[in-house]
Amino acid sequence: MNIILLSGGSGKRLWPLSNDVRSKQFIKFFQGEEGEAESMLQRVYRQIQKAAPDSEVTIATSKTQASAIRNQLGEHVGISPEPCRRDTFPAIALATLYLHDVRKVRAEETVIVCPIDPYVEDSYFENLKKVGEQAASGEASLVLMGIEPTYPSEKYGYIIPQSTENISRVRTFKEKPDAETAKEYIAEGALWNGGVFAYKLKYVLEKAHELIDFEDYADFYAKYEELDKISFDYAVAEHEPNIQVVRFDGAWKDLGTWNTLTETIDRHVVGDAMLDETCENVHVINELDVPVLCMGLKDIVVAVGPDGILVSDKMQSSFMKPYVDKLHRPARYAEKSWGDFRIIDIEEDSLTIKITLNPGEKMNYHSHERRDEVWSIISGEGKVIVDDMEQEVSAGDVITMQAGCRHTVIAKTVLKILEVQLGKEIDVHDKQKFEWEEKFI
Amino acid sequence: MNIILLSGGSGKRLWPLSNDVRSKQFIKFFQGEEGEAESMLQRVYRQIQKAAPDSEVTIATSKTQASAIRNQLGEHVGISPEPCRRDTFPAIALATLYLHDVRKVRAEETVIVCPIDPYVEDSYFENLKKVGEQAASGEASLVLMGIEPTYPSEKYGYIIPQSTENISRVRTFKEKPDAETAKEYIAEGALWNGGVFAYKLKYVLEKAHELIDFEDYADFYAKYEELDKISFDYAVAEHEPNIQVVRFDGAWKDLGTWNTLTETIDRHVVGDAMLDETCENVHVINELDVPVLCMGLKDIVVAVGPDGILVSDKMQSSFMKPYVDKLHRPARYAEKSWGDFRIIDIEEDSLTIKITLNPGEKMNYHSHERRDEVWSIISGEGKVIVDDMEQEVSAGDVITMQAGCRHTVIAKTVLKILEVQLGKEIDVHDKQKFEWEEKFI
Repeated sequence: MNIILLSGGSGKRLWPLSNDVRSKQFIKFFQGEEGEAESMLQRVYRQIQKAAPDSEVTIATSKTQASAIRNQLGEHVGISPEPCRRDTFPAIALATLYLHDVRKVRAEETVIVCPIDPYVEDSYFENLKKVGEQAASGEASLVLMGIEPTYPSEKYGYIIPQSTENISRVRTFKEKPDAETAKEYIAEGALWNGGVFAYKLKYVLEKAHELIDFEDYADFYAKYEELDKISFDYAVAEHEPNIQVVRFDGAWKDLGTWNTLTETIDRHVVGDAMLDETCENVHVINELDVPVLCMGLKDIVVAVGPDGILVSDKMQSSFMKPYVDKLHRPARYAEKSWGDFRIIDIEEDSLTIKITLNPGEKMNYHSHERRDEVWSIISGEGKVIVDDMEQEVSAGDVITMQAGCRHTVIAKTVLKILEVQLGKEIDVHDKQKFEWEEKFI
Repeated sequence: MNIILLSGGSGKRLWPLSNDVRSKQFIKFFQGEEGEAESMLQRVYRQIQKAAPDSEVTIATSKTQASAIRNQLGEHVGISPEPCRRDTFPAIALATLYLHDVRKVRAEETVIVCPIDPYVEDSYFENLKKVGEQAASGEASLVLMGIEPTYPSEKYGYIIPQSTENISRVRTFKEKPDAETAKEYIAEGALWNGGVFAYKLKYVLEKAHELIDFEDYADFYAKYEELDKISFDYAVAEHEPNIQVVRFDGAWKDLGTWNTLTETIDRHVVGDAMLDETCENVHVINELDVPVLCMGLKDIVVAVGPDGILVSDKMQSSFMKPYVDKLHRPARYAEKSWGDFRIIDIEEDSLTIKITLNPGEKMNYHSHERRDEVWSIISGEGKVIVDDMEQEVSAGDVITMQAGCRHTVIAKTVLKILEVQLGKEIDVHDKQKFEWEEKFI
């Protein structure tokens, strides 16, 4: 069984912990089975491993998130990178083509597409397997999961099934309704559309060729930017007559805002924070190493990270996007394929960055025209190359690099470096890359 | 006229912006006459300069605060340092002896003691002058300022005057009462004791000799640590039969808690912060360079500094002390005689500090046994001396210092340095000082 997890958007509604390069699914809000910090991505992946240990998991995601996914899940998952954002139909088609052309999955095999952000019990993934098995049976072209609604939500699309059976044909789809209409749908037996689609690979292959002119995966990838933004529901599901839905009546939440997210976090405090005894329904997530003290608060979320500090009434936090848009700040923290970096000090003619390189990782071999740099190795071991000269380094070593000199570092262990950039015009684009000399590796 | 300003305590109730080395009176909450940021200390000093330009101002303060006072007020004020905290009687006696023995103020001259933290209009200082003039007249041994009460406060001591005249003899003093008793006092015409005392210098000189066995200022200073903690009210005022009070009926606030402090700050936002339109009666003071976003809050103060983050209901913030006591953190930011420092990164075997040296200031000439250091000059100009070798430095220069090597830096302009300390046992006490070679200055 092939599972495609759709890992979407940049998640401004969870600012300051999500930003353009770091989405909510990577933030370690949760606790894993051994009490370790766990992200949404890691949680869902762990649940899939448990329910369907033989499944092949592929993450459909933007190129910029690929590094973070590798860091959190390792090498076992496939990644179908999207050159840019183009809604769910192009993303699902691209990932399906990736499975077929790159991973050589046969056209008869079953594929299940599932969003990455449902916060659910393990039974959800048992149900997901049923959805896949139903698609494998070939009774329908497309099989969906329908969530039993718990209230007349205006946030979801609705599926109207033909019967109240566990597995039923779909009568019709309804777009996000207002609350009144949602009540009527629910009275008719409607289910929430949970964004799960299962099909035989060839089905989406055919749909993609019907709707888009392309040759193969590589060609589809090359044309991706020109594709229209269109959802899979709108492009495919709503036109498909032969479609079934499998009911799921367990707990199901999507964690898009601080309000919904904090409802699911067991611990009121993540990170260094203290609440006085008069605080009620307060959540603090603190990623900085300064303590947070909360007193006399009610229904409030406090989120602290390198990009900023949010203090918000939980309900009100849903409306944060326009304010966050106004902040216009470059991200001060990012996970990269090779580790992560954090900007820790900014002056007019200097920039100080803390860099963590994972074992075996290296930077590009590069130079800067208009800035000098100083590396202080603050922990770990590695090798530094400056103008083709190699040097073993470990905690305590200091390397100074004049503008124009080529340099790189290769981590042997986890390697932490304090980099001070010094110059009049410090700019991320002031970087010349050089061919990597194989002898260094 | 001699004015002694009592600059007290460490102000845990304004955490995180006040700490053991930085009291509330030094934080620039206010705006000066030209719109510049202004501290409580600077505000009070400016008001005194305006009301009594010829007065000599002496600040009675703990040794640890002397640097911050010099930085904010310059060289024009006298500083009477206290070796440790011993309540107001020893502090006033020490400062009075300092005036007499060190500043050679004559025994007949008038001294006015005033707390440093009243937040008042200029008329208060006009009234302060009257208190001094009344003391100068010699009608009474001691003259106080009585504040017209605005509510039956339990926080202040009360003075019961003999008459309702502007200047009256004092009938009796009352300790901090409960609200009921306070109402009765006020009905009798009682005034708040505002902590102002005016006297001829010789009066406190005599009282000090009556109560404490000592020779002179130097001897009193040497014995200071052994003195009992006792207030001036209790030791002197309450036993003095010949005492007058001058009434003050202007606005008067003491700014001891976030609740009272935020009432006086005009701007709802100090530093980088945004409030949504649903916030009511919210104050944000942000000293970090990450943005703060507040949404849907009411009656809340958010204070952000290098030592931590407070989010509190304004009333509740009065009860913060036990929580702050639990935090047990060394201060990460401090003002020193030579400038300031901020710890910006801590790892097991490294510590990164941003140091600002004021023009003309220098460090001690020193070395460390168990750590190397790297200085990256990030702005300004100065001179570095390493093992007796001088070197002019400016922004962009990097100095590496091995353990054991003697080093210092002298600032020509404001000089900012990123110092990375590297070693297995980094400890503030690992510091050997050396004689300063005069040739370097």
